[in-house]
Amino acid sequence: MNVLKVLMAGFLFFAVTSPAWAVSDLLKEARDNFKPLPDKPVFKADNPGTAAKLKLGKALYFETRLSKSNVFSCNSCHNLAGGGVDNNAFSTGHKWNVGGRNAPTVWNASLHIAQFWDGRAKDVEAQAQGPVLADVEMAATKDIVLKRLGSIPEYVVMFRKAFPGIDSLTYKNMADAIGAFERTLLTPSRFDSFLKGDESALTAHEKTGLKIFMDKGCAACHEGVAVGGGMYAKFGVVNKPAFLKDEGRFGVTKQEDDKNVFKVPSLRNIEFTYPYFNDGSVWNLSEAVKIMGWTQLGEKLSAKEIGDIVAFLNSMTGKLPEITLPKLPASTPLTPKPDRS
Amino acid sequence: MNVLKVLMAGFLFFAVTSPAWAVSDLLKEARDNFKPLPDKPVFKADNPGTAAKLKLGKALYFETRLSKSNVFSCNSCHNLAGGGVDNNAFSTGHKWNVGGRNAPTVWNASLHIAQFWDGRAKDVEAQAQGPVLADVEMAATKDIVLKRLGSIPEYVVMFRKAFPGIDSLTYKNMADAIGAFERTLLTPSRFDSFLKGDESALTAHEKTGLKIFMDKGCAACHEGVAVGGGMYAKFGVVNKPAFLKDEGRFGVTKQEDDKNVFKVPSLRNIEFTYPYFNDGSVWNLSEAVKIMGWTQLGEKLSAKEIGDIVAFLNSMTGKLPEITLPKLPASTPLTPKPDRS
Repeated sequence: MNVLKVLMAGFLFFAVTSPAWAVSDLLKEARDNFKPLPDKPVFKADNPGTAAKLKLGKALYFETRLSKSNVFSCNSCHNLAGGGVDNNAFSTGHKWNVGGRNAPTVWNASLHIAQFWDGRAKDVEAQAQGPVLADVEMAATKDIVLKRLGSIPEYVVMFRKAFPGIDSLTYKNMADAIGAFERTLLTPSRFDSFLKGDESALTAHEKTGLKIFMDKGCAACHEGVAVGGGMYAKFGVVNKPAFLKDEGRFGVTKQEDDKNVFKVPSLRNIEFTYPYFNDGSVWNLSEAVKIMGWTQLGEKLSAKEIGDIVAFLNSMTGKLPEITLPKLPASTPLTPKPDRS
Repeated sequence: MNVLKVLMAGFLFFAVTSPAWAVSDLLKEARDNFKPLPDKPVFKADNPGTAAKLKLGKALYFETRLSKSNVFSCNSCHNLAGGGVDNNAFSTGHKWNVGGRNAPTVWNASLHIAQFWDGRAKDVEAQAQGPVLADVEMAATKDIVLKRLGSIPEYVVMFRKAFPGIDSLTYKNMADAIGAFERTLLTPSRFDSFLKGDESALTAHEKTGLKIFMDKGCAACHEGVAVGGGMYAKFGVVNKPAFLKDEGRFGVTKQEDDKNVFKVPSLRNIEFTYPYFNDGSVWNLSEAVKIMGWTQLGEKLSAKEIGDIVAFLNSMTGKLPEITLPKLPASTPLTPKPDRS
């Protein structure tokens, strides 16, 4: 009898107080839409993240000798001291040129379906091959990059350790090392703690915002592990924004359906990745949310709704990993010189 | 009698074997010319290096919002991932302009008699006020910098902690914080171990180079704790180099005697601070040593002497401190935007 009493008391306690380990409807719905960041970097099967490769990749990420002028490194436009971006509408490159699209954040980028706004590179390894050669970015050539790296004995050794074999120092391996390093750039946030079951990780205000974010339909596109980055969508599916000039993915596929289609940007660390949109034309997050509501959902979001959504978005500001600066090896008399022309 | 025998044996042992703690003539001569780096940063009495100030100073050192375009930070030209320089003849700045003198290294710079090639700033704190405002460098104004920093609540708090009082956020305090951080940028090397008494820290080759360096007279100018940086000297005191156009300190003092006079550069980390001279015209250290022998000493140094001296110079490549990237706070809607014009 005593046993039965205890059991019944336990049952009543459970039913009345909704104990901490019971999952709220909000969390259930959130789990249908989003996933927490992986606890560890996810490497490609053919590009494992060995210690030697990550060390090389970090050095190359900060290596200005990958640019023709020796002025720019990956970190110039994807700054790891901040939002993984340069917080300019368009990035400044070789000879003070500018690119035509806003630099996306490198934080958590490896989890996206593809890279660049138009998805033209399949992963971070493929992406890293691009800006080094782009005229308006680093403006180098494969030849000059390989000559520079190959003239520096420490790099030759680092490539050999990272890519054992006879052909260690290649342009592809350079990009593979950078890509592997980028896969370590994950920024877990309070929203991840929430998704993992710690419902107290979000404030009531943030939870309200999360609910609106899902109810209004934002999460139809900004979904998955990166809260974006997992699919393509037309910018202006309901109302085309007046400022939109860029044809987006149409430039890659030449399919009429892909006009103004872009990879959906990740909203993680959005607080730090201003200015917003493919052209970096909007600096204020509230304004960006308002525009999204109108262009994508045909909704005139109220100021309160926008404030709630922004509160939720800021809960995805992640903890940046501690990154110590690499110690870049010295050039040698054989190293090709910088060229500002 | 036994005691006397022991004493005599000890004396003989001492006289014959020259034990480890006896100081060689080379070390004695070196100590007459040079000093090891201080074990700790040396701060100014009126600008103590508190933890709060060093944290702020590091953030500002990496802060691109100090430049008009938001493209450049102190670290752009004085790169802490390398030799504390940008390894270009002249640094690239706002609108792809270039400066007129080679960027000197920030490593150990606080120990110099003054800052800039012409000594026009008395210390690193004063120096840090310059490039932010220079047209061909960061091209900002005091007003825009203070408006930007003042619009970011985290910076306002950081300044208040670093500079308690009513007027925390000032342009001078910005530079003082950067200067205090720069005072921590010391790079102890094997040469310091040698100067402190570990004579095995240098190889025989390096010791030969050190002896030549002192015997030939290089150490007359490249002396003291920074092996340079402690005095001014005319470039071309014996033979004027054909490439020399810069009037140097004359521009500051307008004294005829100061024509072509420069602060003697520090030779610490010289392996990493190429290209050499005020105009960055020489990329090869051996070539630079050869030119110095001829212009400053009227000596045609032999290839062997040059090789020995370079071996010694490379023993001053120091251990760089581990530097973790700061986490820069986000701008706000009130923060003035970057301006590339």
